[in-house]
Amino acid sequence: MFRKEIKTFDCTIRDGGLINNYDFSEDFVKAVYRAICDAGVDFIELGKKLAVSEEYPLDKYGPWNFCDDDLVKKIVDSYPDGNKPLMAVMFDVGRVDIGTLRDKKDSPIDMIRTACYVPQIDKGLDLVKRSKDKGYLTTLNIMAVSAAIESELIGALEQLHEVKELDYLYLVDSFGSFYCEQITYYLNLYSKYFPREKLGFHGHNNQQMALSNTQQAIIDGVNLLDATINGIGRGAGNCCLELLLGFLKNPKFDVRPIYKVIQKEFVPLRKNIEWGYNDIYGISGILNQHPREAMKFRKDKNNQDNCYDFYESVTKQDMSNA
Amino acid sequence: MFRKEIKTFDCTIRDGGLINNYDFSEDFVKAVYRAICDAGVDFIELGKKLAVSEEYPLDKYGPWNFCDDDLVKKIVDSYPDGNKPLMAVMFDVGRVDIGTLRDKKDSPIDMIRTACYVPQIDKGLDLVKRSKDKGYLTTLNIMAVSAAIESELIGALEQLHEVKELDYLYLVDSFGSFYCEQITYYLNLYSKYFPREKLGFHGHNNQQMALSNTQQAIIDGVNLLDATINGIGRGAGNCCLELLLGFLKNPKFDVRPIYKVIQKEFVPLRKNIEWGYNDIYGISGILNQHPREAMKFRKDKNNQDNCYDFYESVTKQDMSNA
Repeated sequence: MFRKEIKTFDCTIRDGGLINNYDFSEDFVKAVYRAICDAGVDFIELGKKLAVSEEYPLDKYGPWNFCDDDLVKKIVDSYPDGNKPLMAVMFDVGRVDIGTLRDKKDSPIDMIRTACYVPQIDKGLDLVKRSKDKGYLTTLNIMAVSAAIESELIGALEQLHEVKELDYLYLVDSFGSFYCEQITYYLNLYSKYFPREKLGFHGHNNQQMALSNTQQAIIDGVNLLDATINGIGRGAGNCCLELLLGFLKNPKFDVRPIYKVIQKEFVPLRKNIEWGYNDIYGISGILNQHPREAMKFRKDKNNQDNCYDFYESVTKQDMSNA
Repeated sequence: MFRKEIKTFDCTIRDGGLINNYDFSEDFVKAVYRAICDAGVDFIELGKKLAVSEEYPLDKYGPWNFCDDDLVKKIVDSYPDGNKPLMAVMFDVGRVDIGTLRDKKDSPIDMIRTACYVPQIDKGLDLVKRSKDKGYLTTLNIMAVSAAIESELIGALEQLHEVKELDYLYLVDSFGSFYCEQITYYLNLYSKYFPREKLGFHGHNNQQMALSNTQQAIIDGVNLLDATINGIGRGAGNCCLELLLGFLKNPKFDVRPIYKVIQKEFVPLRKNIEWGYNDIYGISGILNQHPREAMKFRKDKNNQDNCYDFYESVTKQDMSNA
């Protein structure tokens, strides 16, 4: 699939950081940055830019949860050669201090991605507008829409209509519960309120659908595609950047630097932290559930693969909600 | 997705047997059979029905490579209750002795699936016709079409036109190299020569596309869907039956017996034999190659995850073929 408007967005450190409290070493992040530069990927997101707080103290979270400008600059400066991806960080609604955000011209950061749930859309839009006022590219990533009441989602989308400060709007499959049919359905819905060519897609791999759902998004006209190296990310992880580049035939991309950094950095990392598809995350995807319960279940090393027990426990919980 | 004509086909033992030379214990096969019965799956394939030969001696291959009728009957009789799936075995062109095949009325087997490559289509059709003469349901599974010369494939398909002895024709993604677009392309091609509603699909998971390609096949009108428990199968394995049942909303299927047998039998088995997606099989899928090289590479335990080395070696081999 070749379309010159298609852009790839690497969120390896940001989504991967959800597994290890953003505690990647600087050398690891530099290696990822270099691979992304060499692969010709268009965007990279180095983490979240949250305010230090009681909920997010410095001693419990690594530096990529806060993405200090000087730290980001250090990474960018570590590899001055080659293709330069645009640099993004993520805002979580309610956990940022927009007052401390420098003007774009004084920052190594190019794009602010604001993540919010459907009921937080006003707060999300406020952050989008204020980020744009400071000169940044902006996105709004509406999370967990598979579990949102559709009339509320539509109400939220109506507010986005002609918001000139918003550069991209993301469809996010937070629970990895979407099949291709739903991708098309939601993209058609989103495109009623926001230009289709400015839509992005972020998938999760609970049902081994992250790559194919991303391909469906491409077919449906989406131009901004999230992926992570080796699919690293919370729970079942994300769309594998290397598989996505293998699918995209655009000669500007080179997959080899990605395999190189996987071999050198991610293979050893896999011994220490776990991500990717397994039966337990598969069940949480099928049942359209937040991966919280599945992640808790995986922590008990003696029973973490007991998929039948997990299926029975979560479906019984569901029935007790009736 | 609900369509009453859709039938699920479990080939756990047959495709899984490619990993361990068909050396599953009888108890393991009985547990799989019971799970398939309880889950309401329509077909089960217990192995291949090859002739014992110098190439396939009894001492190097387990019993499921030969599927003696009495052995198959023992499995069927081990669980007399509940739903009875139709029983299938696979024929490989050039490795069977059709003369020893009993008439269907004297056998516990209902269906013969004949696997062949494009150049073997005449031999494959001969086996199909002779199996039908003995009363069996028949399929023809044309392998490795992603690497076939299209004019030869079309020549083969032309021979299938109005072959009344053939009940189902399979599109097989042997190398796990297809994306959804190719599924649609090939199914459109196949359906020019054979009724669309009698097409089957068998996918592999090299690029994490086995489930989504199966879904694409459903959308494109295919009614017979192969899958294996836990995705077991050679190399990257197959479409996970449990994910497929999670997708199909037909109330005749129950996914719980599948998770039960995974927990009890497959989780321990995973410690002894390997299957499923990894970087190496991903590369062989992207490059549309037979998994042979990838499987060989995975055998060197010290270097089996060196995906960059593997990518470089196979792409350099390719270039030296020019």
